[in-house]
Parts: sequence; structure tokens; C-alpha cells
Amino acid sequence: MARRGVLSTPHGIINTPNFIFCATKGAIKSLSTAELATTGAEIVLSNTYHLMLQPGADIVAMHGGLHKMLNWDKPMLTDSGGFQVFSLGHGGVANEIKGRRNFSSHCSRTLLKVTEEGALFRSYIDGTKHWLTPETSIQVQRKLGADLILAFDECTQFHADRRYTAFSMDRSHRWEFRSLAEFKKSDHGKQALYGIIQGGVYEDLRRVSADFVANSDFFGQAIGGSLGGTKSQMHETVEMINQLIDHTRPIHLLGIGGITDIWHGVKNGIDTFDCVYPTRLARHGGALCAPFLHGGKEFINLNNSCYREDIFPIDSTCDCYCCRKFSRAYIHHLFKAKEMLGGQLLTIHNARFMVRLMETIRRSIENETFRNEFNKWTIF
Amino acid sequence: MARRGVLSTPHGIINTPNFIFCATKGAIKSLSTAELATTGAEIVLSNTYHLMLQPGADIVAMHGGLHKMLNWDKPMLTDSGGFQVFSLGHGGVANEIKGRRNFSSHCSRTLLKVTEEGALFRSYIDGTKHWLTPETSIQVQRKLGADLILAFDECTQFHADRRYTAFSMDRSHRWEFRSLAEFKKSDHGKQALYGIIQGGVYEDLRRVSADFVANSDFFGQAIGGSLGGTKSQMHETVEMINQLIDHTRPIHLLGIGGITDIWHGVKNGIDTFDCVYPTRLARHGGALCAPFLHGGKEFINLNNSCYREDIFPIDSTCDCYCCRKFSRAYIHHLFKAKEMLGGQLLTIHNARFMVRLMETIRRSIENETFRNEFNKWTIF
Repeated sequence: MARRGVLSTPHGIINTPNFIFCATKGAIKSLSTAELATTGAEIVLSNTYHLMLQPGADIVAMHGGLHKMLNWDKPMLTDSGGFQVFSLGHGGVANEIKGRRNFSSHCSRTLLKVTEEGALFRSYIDGTKHWLTPETSIQVQRKLGADLILAFDECTQFHADRRYTAFSMDRSHRWEFRSLAEFKKSDHGKQALYGIIQGGVYEDLRRVSADFVANSDFFGQAIGGSLGGTKSQMHETVEMINQLIDHTRPIHLLGIGGITDIWHGVKNGIDTFDCVYPTRLARHGGALCAPFLHGGKEFINLNNSCYREDIFPIDSTCDCYCCRKFSRAYIHHLFKAKEMLGGQLLTIHNARFMVRLMETIRRSIENETFRNEFNKWTIF
Repeated sequence: MARRGVLSTPHGIINTPNFIFCATKGAIKSLSTAELATTGAEIVLSNTYHLMLQPGADIVAMHGGLHKMLNWDKPMLTDSGGFQVFSLGHGGVANEIKGRRNFSSHCSRTLLKVTEEGALFRSYIDGTKHWLTPETSIQVQRKLGADLILAFDECTQFHADRRYTAFSMDRSHRWEFRSLAEFKKSDHGKQALYGIIQGGVYEDLRRVSADFVANSDFFGQAIGGSLGGTKSQMHETVEMINQLIDHTRPIHLLGIGGITDIWHGVKNGIDTFDCVYPTRLARHGGALCAPFLHGGKEFINLNNSCYREDIFPIDSTCDCYCCRKFSRAYIHHLFKAKEMLGGQLLTIHNARFMVRLMETIRRSIENETFRNEFNKWTIF
């Protein structure tokens, strides 16, 4: 089911399959947009929830939108804000959908009320109350001005039971329908709207949701909600959804970015992925690497003292600034010395790694060697 | 006394007067050496004390020296390690020599013993004991491989009395003499040694020290130790030392980097300056600016809420990446959102500002307009 495509936007094309880098609060953590561009990245996303609270959508609009404010003239995506409202509201949804078990639930609860109208939440910055509804989400995303935008939905928690998942999915469909209506009211042809497929791990619910989105006038489809409690369940759920989804439209898998997870996603027809994983990993000392060269491990940890005297680059086959110019020992030193530059250099490496990974995937589809490459990257 | 010169090193020239950026632990805080190079910076320094403890001089040497490890092929300077041994040992010397009064003295004392031989101190990293002597300082600086290196001295504290200042100065002279002897033993013509002029705020002591350095075979002279308790006393002390110093050799003023302080220093014959001020200020939200355009203020604070909706660049006449591409409102947002990128972008601006400031100073000397420019930049 792996497929090679191109998404055209007013800010250029996105070759798919591709990975979307997270500029959550309007900044790739530790990287300028100019530096990210040197890695070959084609698209970034920002989060509506964060930006509507700080600096506020109107201030972004004063700049002429996110592209201008961030000085990024390539494609951008914004989410609807729904994920964070519910994630920060309940605490730990992100951990759940990825199958991490021992997630922390220390997050303070900021979600005040969820009604048919939308969600009332408290700003994590100053405690002020805000409504996020399908209409306000689209209005904010209009001001942010990303090329690809998302309908407003509820991200159902993994431990939600079938009954709540079904109830929430139905309401999300009504919210998505209202999102689409609001979108059409102000459609200027410069933004494209994705519907979200909910339904948790339940095949019958996913089928209903996939049908709802397929029968609505969305440009693309994003897979949201819980994908299960383990990595293998996540892969199975994506495979199951793949059987139900409309393959005539672009498909985005929300919040997934592990190397093997991406290979499994592409195998099941996913076009685009996003995740903070590559950039977050970098700030903690992790450099992405080919698992088949590292006993199945997806990264090496530069904090490890085995790199203290290692004057070779992180990856001698990598053409990123970090690998061309600096040694493992130097990066190790920067982390030991708590120098921000360590995380910055690894972020460049990890971004370049993801760009090259997606190039490898696309080439393998073009060359019809995907099955071989998939096995090489995922079976150990 | 302002003078325009050129220092030649194996890694290229330094146009003087010039400013030396601090890569204290082998990294410009928050900036890659490639980014710093784009600002036009000609020279950086690293600190022997920090690097000998982490990663260790031998690991730097394994890379082929600091230039290779940091990927910086322009001139470099290292200090002797003496400043930090005594600064971190007593706590707060840096604050004193700059005339800041209410400095904190919370630093744990790491200096264990000072003898004629040198200083015994405890590593702030792992508690291990280390001797720093004139000989070990030069040996470490040989391994680090900077173009300009410094003799080992004691940085006398401001509140040291005349008697201790004199005693310490004499011992520093004996240490500098031993530094020079050690330097000559291994002289390969690729490094140049600076002697340090001590003597605190006492003219007769400074005269003795200036004569000692002038009569020794140092390449250059650095002004160290206490310059007084206030900014104006600092300017007076530099002026006083200027009367005593040998003007046939390069003169470096240690640890000073304020805008007006630099103008006063150049007026008194200083060739080079170094300070963490521009880069540290940036990480706290301060963008350097021309004082004559800002009521005598040397920086604007981007944390200030007055920049919340300010879509103009920090300085529309500045050609740095930050000013060409981003608004004050965006930088303000990055600081509010605690995004590292805010400090990174301001560091680029402040580095470029310092480079342009030094260009302005050099040009004013060449054009014989120094007096006018000095007045414009220092009198409000």
C-alpha cells in the first residue's frame, strides 16, 4: 500500500511520504528556520492551542501569518488545538496513543468543560478562560495561515471505554462537520482542510469514522485518537484503519515519528507523519541512527561516556553540518558541559536524518524495492 | 591614543581594535561557529580552566586542537586558567573588576591552596584535585593550540588590600616569568604569549608590573586584576595604566565588553577586548543598541511587554539574520514561550552588533573622526 505522491500548496510541494517537523510554539526547538531549510525539510507544523494563547492569533496575523513570522516560505500545517486542549486537560494523552505505559499524569488539569458547543479551558500561561470550538479553531487557523489545517475534534484517551469513545467520536464528527462549514464560509483557496478519523482501537467505530470523513468534503484525512497500548497494537491499528480509509485523498498519521513506526505507516498507505520525537530526542542527547547498523536501536545516546574520546563523527555517511564538522567526543563534551550547542547540533543531525529517511522510503517506492527496504529497517 | 592595527596569526589576521567572543567551554553559548563566522567575528577565546577539567586537554589535542574540535579556522585565544581558579575559588571576581557592587558570593569555594608553586583547586565537576601552575597552564595551552595564549597569574580581588595586591603581583610576576620559560622550552612559532599586568588600582604597583612585562620577552600585554569599584574608576584605571604601558606591543584588556567601556579602552590604546557580556545579555533577552539612539541605554530588553505587538525588526539598519528576518514581537514571543531560539537569534544580533561596533571604531581611527565618534557614543 506504500505510495509515492506530491502535495501541492501555495508555498510549494511536499513529496510524500514525508515527515512534518514540529515548531510547536512557532519555533523549531533550538533551530532557526534557515538551519532547518538546509536539512531539506519540506514542511513544518505549529500548534494552534499554543499560538492562540501566546502570542495570540491576531499578533501572528499582524505579521501576515505564520510563514512570515517564522520566516519559513515552504508548506506549513497547523492542528486544530483539540489535541492539546484534551491532552493538557486530562494529562498524558500523547504518551497513551504511543503505547507508553508508565506515563506521568502530573499535568495540571486545565480542561474546565466540554459541551456540544466545544471545550472551555484555562490558559496554562495566565489562567484566563478560553473557548475552543470548531468555529473558533478554524478562525484562528485562518489567521495563522498555514497551508494545511485540521478540523476540530476530541482526542479520546486510551483508557476511555468503548462507550465514551463512540460518544466522543460522534461528537467529533459533528465538530468536524461544523469545522468544514466554517471553513467553506471563508474559503479563499489558499488553505486545505483535513478531517480526523477517530474511533480508538475499535474497528467498527473506525469504519464509521473513516466513512464519515470519506463522505465529507475534506481535502485530506488525518488519523487521530488512540492507536492502542503498545507499539505492536499501534501498528495493527494503523493497518486496520488502512483497510477502511479512502485512498483517493492524502492521509496523515498524527503524532507518530519513530523510525520503524514510519516504515509501518508508509506500508499502510500513510503519506505524512509528524512528531516532536526527532527534535526532543536531540535535546536529550540522542542522535538518530539506522537501526540495522545498531542492533535495532534507533538512536545513540551522546551522553554515554563511551563517546568521551571518540573523535569520529556521529555518522560518517551523513552530510549534515554536525556530522561533517564535529566529533562524537565534542558533542559528548557539549552535553557534559550543558552547552545548548550540543542539542542544536544534534537537532540538525536528527532533522537531516529524518529527511534522508523519507528520501530513502520514497526512492524505495519509486524503485519498487520497498519490501526489501522495509525488512532491512524493521526486522532484527 | 586610539590606534588601528593588525595582528597576524597562523589562522589569519585580527584587525584591531577588535572584540574577542567567548567560547568559554569550547562553544559560543547557543551559536555554532559557522553562524558566528557569518557575523564577521575574527577571533574567539576559550577558557583553559574549563577545558582542562572537561573534556580535558588531551581530548582536545586528539582532535588536533581547539580550532579543529570547534571547527573554527580563524584566530583563537586561551587564557591561563588563573582567572577562574581564583574567581570560582573566592567567588565573584568578575563582578568586582567590573565595579558591580551587590555581587553574589554564593559560589562554593573550590580553591584549596595557593603556594609559590601554583594553585591547588577542586574540580567543580567531580571534586577531583588539580594543580594549576605556570608550567601546567602553558602545557595545557599548548595542547589546546590557540594562537594567542596567556601567562599564568593570580587575579587579585578588588577587596584585597594594597599589601596583598603587592604581594600577589610579585608572585604573579614570578609565575609569568616561569610561564615564559616554559613557553620558550616548547616554542614552535605557532603560538604567541601575553604577559599580564597586575597591581590593582595602585599606580605605583601598575608601574612596576607594566615595567616587568615591558622588560620581558612577551608578544603582548594583557591588563588583568582589579580596575576599581565603579565604572568611572575602571575608566580612570585603564587611563592610568595606559600612561605606564609599552605601546610597541599589542594590548588586551581582560573581561571588559560594555559599549562605552570599549570606547574608553580604545581611547586609551587598547587593541583587543573580551567579555561574555554580548552573548550572556542575549540569552536574557537583551539586544545591543546604539546608546545615542536609546537615551544612553546600551540594550533593549525584548522581554518587555512593549514589544508584544511590535512587528518591526530590532534594528532596521542592522544586517544580521535576526534583524533581516524577524520582528521584535516574534523575539518577544520566543522569550515569553521560553523557546531557546530567542536567545540564539539575539546572540546573532549581539555578535553582529559588536562586529559592526568595532568596524565603526576602526573606521573612525582611519578617518581621524575618533574624537567625534567617541563623544557621540559615550556622552549623553
